[in-house]
Amino acid sequence: MKVVTRIEQSLAMAVASGEEPGCPPKLAGAIRHAVFPGGARIRPQLCLAVAHACGQDDPALSDAAAVAIELLHCASLVHDDLPCFDDAQTRRGRASVHWAYGESLAVLAGDALIVMAFKTLASAAGQSPQRLPALLKIVADGVGMPFGIVAGQAWESESRVSLVDYQRAKTGALFVASTCAGALSAGADPQGWRALGECLGEAYQVADDIRDVMGQAELLGKPVGQDAQHARPNAIANLGLGGAIAHFESLIQAAVDSVPECASAKEMRQLVWQESERLVPRAACNEYRNASVTSPAALA
Amino acid sequence: MKVVTRIEQSLAMAVASGEEPGCPPKLAGAIRHAVFPGGARIRPQLCLAVAHACGQDDPALSDAAAVAIELLHCASLVHDDLPCFDDAQTRRGRASVHWAYGESLAVLAGDALIVMAFKTLASAAGQSPQRLPALLKIVADGVGMPFGIVAGQAWESESRVSLVDYQRAKTGALFVASTCAGALSAGADPQGWRALGECLGEAYQVADDIRDVMGQAELLGKPVGQDAQHARPNAIANLGLGGAIAHFESLIQAAVDSVPECASAKEMRQLVWQESERLVPRAACNEYRNASVTSPAALA
Repeated sequence: MKVVTRIEQSLAMAVASGEEPGCPPKLAGAIRHAVFPGGARIRPQLCLAVAHACGQDDPALSDAAAVAIELLHCASLVHDDLPCFDDAQTRRGRASVHWAYGESLAVLAGDALIVMAFKTLASAAGQSPQRLPALLKIVADGVGMPFGIVAGQAWESESRVSLVDYQRAKTGALFVASTCAGALSAGADPQGWRALGECLGEAYQVADDIRDVMGQAELLGKPVGQDAQHARPNAIANLGLGGAIAHFESLIQAAVDSVPECASAKEMRQLVWQESERLVPRAACNEYRNASVTSPAALA
Repeated sequence: MKVVTRIEQSLAMAVASGEEPGCPPKLAGAIRHAVFPGGARIRPQLCLAVAHACGQDDPALSDAAAVAIELLHCASLVHDDLPCFDDAQTRRGRASVHWAYGESLAVLAGDALIVMAFKTLASAAGQSPQRLPALLKIVADGVGMPFGIVAGQAWESESRVSLVDYQRAKTGALFVASTCAGALSAGADPQGWRALGECLGEAYQVADDIRDVMGQAELLGKPVGQDAQHARPNAIANLGLGGAIAHFESLIQAAVDSVPECASAKEMRQLVWQESERLVPRAACNEYRNASVTSPAALA
């Protein structure tokens, strides 16, 4: 079975486990809207790729880790889109959850998804309960205080923040959780996989900043120009577009280089390159560079 | 050590674990504001009382279960107070979290508290990891879909709902989680303790409805008259004040009767009576009954 199919099936089962006759139907709808159809599902893919590289002796637990991380990612999107944050009307090319279901149900859908993530992990730990505490902790660290994605979002309410702290928490933390949880779900030491998550996470955030400026709304799946509008810390403000593109490319290279030697190292590096192309197409980078040679300010 | 002291100390440790140099300070403040000073801490007390009754051979895990449930309760209060729900300016007699810290940080504080709850549970499972899956599941069931407190809150967005389904989810579910998690944390079968949670949970919700009408804002710690204002399903609308008081009293009696025979059954029944008096003082019930004899509509 293709990995993406496996992820969609596992997500479908997790979401269905929260729906029973007698549950509030609108909230069930809002949760489905938040999870399906999904984006690139890069975090669960990364999680399963690392689990595979580590021998993956408990596929149900690896699937649950991948699902938990994607559900937490979906929860963060629902809450980040709320009127008190971005007030985004669209997400993944269609109505955001609060736009479709109202603010109350969007708050509750996010809450329910966080709970569902941890319950999914717990439910799959039958074969290897001794792995659950560390696995749960690494996933929680990717989301909560002091340095998870919730902390990252909270930095937007502070008057002073370093770009590195902000990006590390806002995006990097859940990528680190993805690689480390993949390893832990297979009973392996997560340390060797931490750098891959860190580099990819930062690359992802820089790519988001680049696309926000390049105006590729169709790639972003949400409105562009949001960083400047919300005065959020971003790589472009610090490095300029050219600098941000160079930084992105160096992060992708570092991610590729960080992959530990293992039977599926080649596959993993392939996944990183492929994701890099999806995030910021090489053609767009080259186009910018060519334009800059004739006029440095052309696309800045 | 007194149980309430033990609970406050464990909560303080859990909240401190989310604070490290370099974390966003306002979010840390909002989380503290949500948890301290607390209310009656009835859910963690109930959890620890059941754990004690079941032999409590792993006090660290029982403490973590109690803390997890209280953190989830605090999270639900923060989110339920948001402008898209009650828009309550006060909670526990002072500013609600969004009133003190703004809406964004209130959303994030709730999210962080949910994550912290599950991480606290996982962190304490070192001695008995085999208990973690069931414990985590019972706590998650008390909060998430399909029948936890998030589902209960979501019923307020539906045009049709039965009062029983609503109250069972909105309040009962976390009381059931409290008693069952207490038992599971001590390695005991939770089934015998479920009825206690169900009866107390329903009694608590009916008491809330009674106090909302009786106008005892100082007992409620939040504005009164909210149910009618938000057209929420409530016991008074169905039963009238006299009927609601009688129902409350029968629920407390059922809770007392449900306590399984065990060494500390007397203590447990004492806790139920004591909580009943705190929720709806007997004097107030008698006052209402005496007034009703002369004029049935006096306090209705």
